[in-house]
Amino acid sequence: MKKNVLIIGAGGVAQVAAHKCAQNNDVLGDIHIASRTKAKCDRIIESVHEKKALKRPGVLEAHALDALDIEATKALIRKTGAEIVINVGTAFLNMSVLRACIDTGAAYIDTAIHEEPGKICETPPWYGNYEWKRAAECEEKGITAILGAGFDPGVVNAYARLAKDEYLDKVTDVDIVDINAGSHGKYFATNFDPEINFREFTGVVYSWQNNEWQVNRMFEIGKEYDLPVVGKRKAYLCGHDEVHSLAKNMDGADVRFWMGFSDHYINVFTVLKNIGLLSEQPVTTAEGQEVVPLKVVKACLPDPASLAPDYEGKTCIGDYVKGIKGGKERTVFIYNVADHRQAYNEVGSQGISYTAGVPPVAAAMLIATGEWDVKKMANVEELPPRPFIDILNRIGLPTRIQDENGDRAVSFEMAAA
Amino acid sequence: MKKNVLIIGAGGVAQVAAHKCAQNNDVLGDIHIASRTKAKCDRIIESVHEKKALKRPGVLEAHALDALDIEATKALIRKTGAEIVINVGTAFLNMSVLRACIDTGAAYIDTAIHEEPGKICETPPWYGNYEWKRAAECEEKGITAILGAGFDPGVVNAYARLAKDEYLDKVTDVDIVDINAGSHGKYFATNFDPEINFREFTGVVYSWQNNEWQVNRMFEIGKEYDLPVVGKRKAYLCGHDEVHSLAKNMDGADVRFWMGFSDHYINVFTVLKNIGLLSEQPVTTAEGQEVVPLKVVKACLPDPASLAPDYEGKTCIGDYVKGIKGGKERTVFIYNVADHRQAYNEVGSQGISYTAGVPPVAAAMLIATGEWDVKKMANVEELPPRPFIDILNRIGLPTRIQDENGDRAVSFEMAAA
Repeated sequence: MKKNVLIIGAGGVAQVAAHKCAQNNDVLGDIHIASRTKAKCDRIIESVHEKKALKRPGVLEAHALDALDIEATKALIRKTGAEIVINVGTAFLNMSVLRACIDTGAAYIDTAIHEEPGKICETPPWYGNYEWKRAAECEEKGITAILGAGFDPGVVNAYARLAKDEYLDKVTDVDIVDINAGSHGKYFATNFDPEINFREFTGVVYSWQNNEWQVNRMFEIGKEYDLPVVGKRKAYLCGHDEVHSLAKNMDGADVRFWMGFSDHYINVFTVLKNIGLLSEQPVTTAEGQEVVPLKVVKACLPDPASLAPDYEGKTCIGDYVKGIKGGKERTVFIYNVADHRQAYNEVGSQGISYTAGVPPVAAAMLIATGEWDVKKMANVEELPPRPFIDILNRIGLPTRIQDENGDRAVSFEMAAA
Repeated sequence: MKKNVLIIGAGGVAQVAAHKCAQNNDVLGDIHIASRTKAKCDRIIESVHEKKALKRPGVLEAHALDALDIEATKALIRKTGAEIVINVGTAFLNMSVLRACIDTGAAYIDTAIHEEPGKICETPPWYGNYEWKRAAECEEKGITAILGAGFDPGVVNAYARLAKDEYLDKVTDVDIVDINAGSHGKYFATNFDPEINFREFTGVVYSWQNNEWQVNRMFEIGKEYDLPVVGKRKAYLCGHDEVHSLAKNMDGADVRFWMGFSDHYINVFTVLKNIGLLSEQPVTTAEGQEVVPLKVVKACLPDPASLAPDYEGKTCIGDYVKGIKGGKERTVFIYNVADHRQAYNEVGSQGISYTAGVPPVAAAMLIATGEWDVKKMANVEELPPRPFIDILNRIGLPTRIQDENGDRAVSFEMAAA
């Protein structure tokens, strides 16, 4: 059954989501895009029309919305008849948008954990501080709410579940590795909102090991990975959303997240952090102006969307899942490789936005078809991974696996694993 | 004849100047200190009393003053009976304070070139853009205005003149070298107002070579110096005030300024500059707030005055002056070594403030005694260097020389050169 979709947000990820919804509006219904600045939604709609992305004639409309305003969001959900809300706005909006969905009966999808402006890196598990507090209410009212359905978190959660279901009898370690081997040609830039990007790394690093939260400093633990396509890359143990749900859902396996950083990124980050320029707490200038340093750094850095035209190279994101199979130790690497230029050519965004923006649309399609319309709150690893991976294979993010039998595509439409 | 002094400014340099005026109030008269925040002046006065710095009982008073307000400054000069104004406030004040001095007949002393907030690194010679435009008026009205009478510019200009007068028949090269080999123990800090400090280095580098202005990039040209006390240090060709007057007054000699920088300083500076955080031009945050990034960086960095208690090590600042003497090539190095801790113990400021704050008081003493009361505008190298160097020898900044005859003190009270 077709379901109308409301996309909240108008950044690079929203642009990808809009294109993908348009490309699949035979499964989805009317498409609405809302953000504080309607002009940004208008530009996304223009881009969708330029690429002739609408699969069949259909509604594609822009709206101005302050999504922190729950009543306004509810009104827009009702006015547009949206049955699915894809929240790809700033992470500060989650709890407001979720509230609006619960109150109106719409399904909710997001791609990153809720954040409060004045707080970073709260007590683990992070989902427990906000989203999971609404789990009972969602179940009671039959609201489908899929949390963290981007790539990481999102697809990597499905990869972990897939490994557990189909490749291993028992999982002992999940090591998620995220490498962006692309180059944007700027002195320094973040691939998504600098404010959210830096906030990920200014606190401590939580990982789940030996059935407890382990705390490290950022860039304390590094490791070289030799990955398909992108080759040897240095990655560092980081805090990341998916660790906080997989810690609960992987039967006690260790869960770590590793992100690739160049020495240049680390140097810039270290300088900015040590000086205090990444602080989310305001400082007062000599002239008496109150300013949040991180917001000024953001204003000085390139707009992530502006990187897309010149971005070259590939990303490789996947899960090393280790465990026991038939009494023997086994490790599989389930992964995707995406290409920045290919993403730009298709939807006008760079590869990082692409990997984050395609999966929530796959999730929306699975809600529309009923397969993921679970009438409760769920993290991605709590849902059947096969249909998700199959849709992603078809709509731009093919899954591959590397193990003792070599490197090959993963697909369930044609063959079993 | 004793002359009342008005010190404008209440930072580290003003504190040193206040202590030194107090220590010499048998030559100078009443001492007044004025800044926007009177409380900062009060704290300086407390510190002078704590150290029992007043040589004889005398007036020592604090005043609130916005020195950009010319009429208010004139009124304060008249009210205090100040015959000498030592301007050690921000470099943005020079032209206003100079105006007030010309209109009231007070003598004017500063330690750095005038700057306009929205401009950096203007067309050389820098003095030609502002101060020198008032030279004719000063001469006509008999106003003594001594420009750049800190250490560098200031003492180093006197060193150049001394070398020209007494050690060489003809000068071909003046290389001023400024090394701070001290350590403040912070991750990063500037030794004086970060805003002024960074503005020195964000533009191009002007040097005077082959009778024309040469343009380089910052950190483009580096050179290792082996200096007395501080040893081998890497210094870089920089733009600096004194180059712009010495270019006119050293009979066609090349004039270069070299400042020592650690690799760490250069790295931090490079990151901040490349990101745009050292810009004096405002940016607009996503929330619509207009902010000058450089002012936010300043707000995040330690207050230079706060470095003093833990500052250790020494500075070495001097002039390598090369030329011809008796038909043969000769190079002399005339220099001073100052000690951060000794400065703190004496006047409660670190060594950089000390070297900048002592010389304008020596200049004021020479105006009071008449030796430098020249009734016109002058840069330091246009004035007789011997009495200046003799006072500095006595009040805390002894001069030494290194040449083919070894390393020794320079003093004219006891012996000729």
